[in-house]
This record gives sequence, C-alpha cells and structure tokens, in this order.
Amino acid sequence: MVFKSHMFQALDEARAAGVRGEVPVGAVVVAPDGRVVAAAGNRTRELCDPSAHAEMLAIRAACAAAGSERLTGHDLYVTLEPCAMCAAVIAAARIARLYYGAADPKSGGVAHGARVFSHPQAHHVPQIYDGIGAEDSAALLRTFFAAARDSAAKG
Amino acid sequence: MVFKSHMFQALDEARAAGVRGEVPVGAVVVAPDGRVVAAAGNRTRELCDPSAHAEMLAIRAACAAAGSERLTGHDLYVTLEPCAMCAAVIAAARIARLYYGAADPKSGGVAHGARVFSHPQAHHVPQIYDGIGAEDSAALLRTFFAAARDSAAKG
Repeated sequence: MVFKSHMFQALDEARAAGVRGEVPVGAVVVAPDGRVVAAAGNRTRELCDPSAHAEMLAIRAACAAAGSERLTGHDLYVTLEPCAMCAAVIAAARIARLYYGAADPKSGGVAHGARVFSHPQAHHVPQIYDGIGAEDSAALLRTFFAAARDSAAKG
Repeated sequence: MVFKSHMFQALDEARAAGVRGEVPVGAVVVAPDGRVVAAAGNRTRELCDPSAHAEMLAIRAACAAAGSERLTGHDLYVTLEPCAMCAAVIAAARIARLYYGAADPKSGGVAHGARVFSHPQAHHVPQIYDGIGAEDSAALLRTFFAAARDSAAKG
C-alpha cells in the first residue's frame, strides 16, 4: 500500500537538501509496522562524501537503528530514481518495496543504465513502484538546476 | 604504474577483515603523489551497514581526509572485483585507476552483471586493471567461505 504522506516527507527532505545547496533528493525508510525509522536528504557536499545520497543515508541510519545490515520488510520512498550505487545498497539491505518519484535518465540505475535489479548479481529485488510524486520531485530538480545555471552564468 | 605493495596492503586489510568474521576484502586509496591516504577492510557486520564494503569505506575516508567528494588523480586497489554499489561510488569519486584482484562472477558489477562503467549513466570511467594478486585474494575468500560452511554444517 502506498502512503502518500511518506512521499510527502521524502519531498520535504528533498526541499531541505536544496536549501542546503545540495541536489534536492529526499528519502524515507518505513518499518513493517508503518513507523518512519529514517529520513534523509542529499548531503554529498556537506559531508564531502560521494556516497551520501538520500537513500544511502536513510538506509544507513535505519540499519544502525535496527542493529542489522538488513531491513527485511522495510519500504523505501525516494523522490528520484536511485542511481546504480543506491539501487545496489537497496538490494543489499533487502528493502521490500521501493517507491520512487521522477525518472532519472541521466544518472538512474533502476530503469536506466546499469539496471541493477535486472541482473542475477543483485541478490534481492524489491517490488518497484515508480512515478509517485514525480511532478513535484521533477519541479524541485528543475528549479534547483536552473538556479545553479543562472548562478554560474553570472559568475 | 602498478605498485604491488599497494595490493599487498589491500590483501592485509582483507586478511584482517576475515579475522574479524567479515568477508575478506580489502582496499587502499593512493594519492597522486603515491601516498596511501586510506585503507580499509569489509565491516558490514561490525557496523550493521550494508554499504560498509572495503572500497566504500576507503573512499569515504580518503574523501574526508581530502575535504572533497572527489578524488581526482587517486588510484584504488581492491582485492575483489567491486560490486555495482562500489563501482558506482568509484565513478562518483572520480577515481583515476582501479586495480582489482579476483573476478567476482557472483556479485561483481564491473566485468559482470550491471557492468556499471559500460553505461553513459556512469559519469566517469577509471582505467581498469584486473587480476592483480587475484590468486591470493581468491584463496582468502575460498578459505573463509569453506570455514563458514563447515561451521554452519556443524551447527
């Protein structure tokens, strides 16, 4: 079952990331009982960490809270199609359902490019639901990158 | 140029990981001036973190030390073919050269499965040198998994 409020929370995380000057992507991990156990936005610049994508940070936090490297039965909501790195950690963490917003033809690794879940080397494949909150997510990204281009053009 | 001593150090990290009960994989990041700036072994169990592969930990540590999410001109030595997650973070970190040991048909994401570097969604592709120290690396993994099977069989 899709709870829109979880994607709304992920979109809030994305907005907050944009305000911090990070690419506006947000993610939320939900436990089998419906509790939100982790929420995060992109922090690659702040943390000087190329792996600090929203999904990665949310999964790491949820695993730390659970005391386990696996999140069996947990769902992940993320505003943008995960990249290959995040798709692979979603498989490793045994996330049950992946809900994502906008497609990412340029950097995605689920429906584009590496298509991580379509190979036997992904030892777990979540159920995937795409396009949820996609318009809001895509609008956030468009506004962010348009502002970045304007800023670059003005030097 | 390949410095065997760097792969020896990665193998030492792999051995130490095995002693800790982790899958024995090790990695080393080398700066353009030849200094080893980070070395790590697998710590997924210890840290309850499915992303805590040797390459990922070494890249994160090197980025933290450099104060940058990019490691332009740096080389990565790892004892096993990186998985899709680690291949993608290697691309994101702009690692210049990837030296790896044993091939990993079961979980690899460089020469197998997702083949992360073979898609335009990988925005950087390192030079890749495989098979370095492969025998030592494969022997470590064989011994580790044989012991794990024995242990499981003995209950």
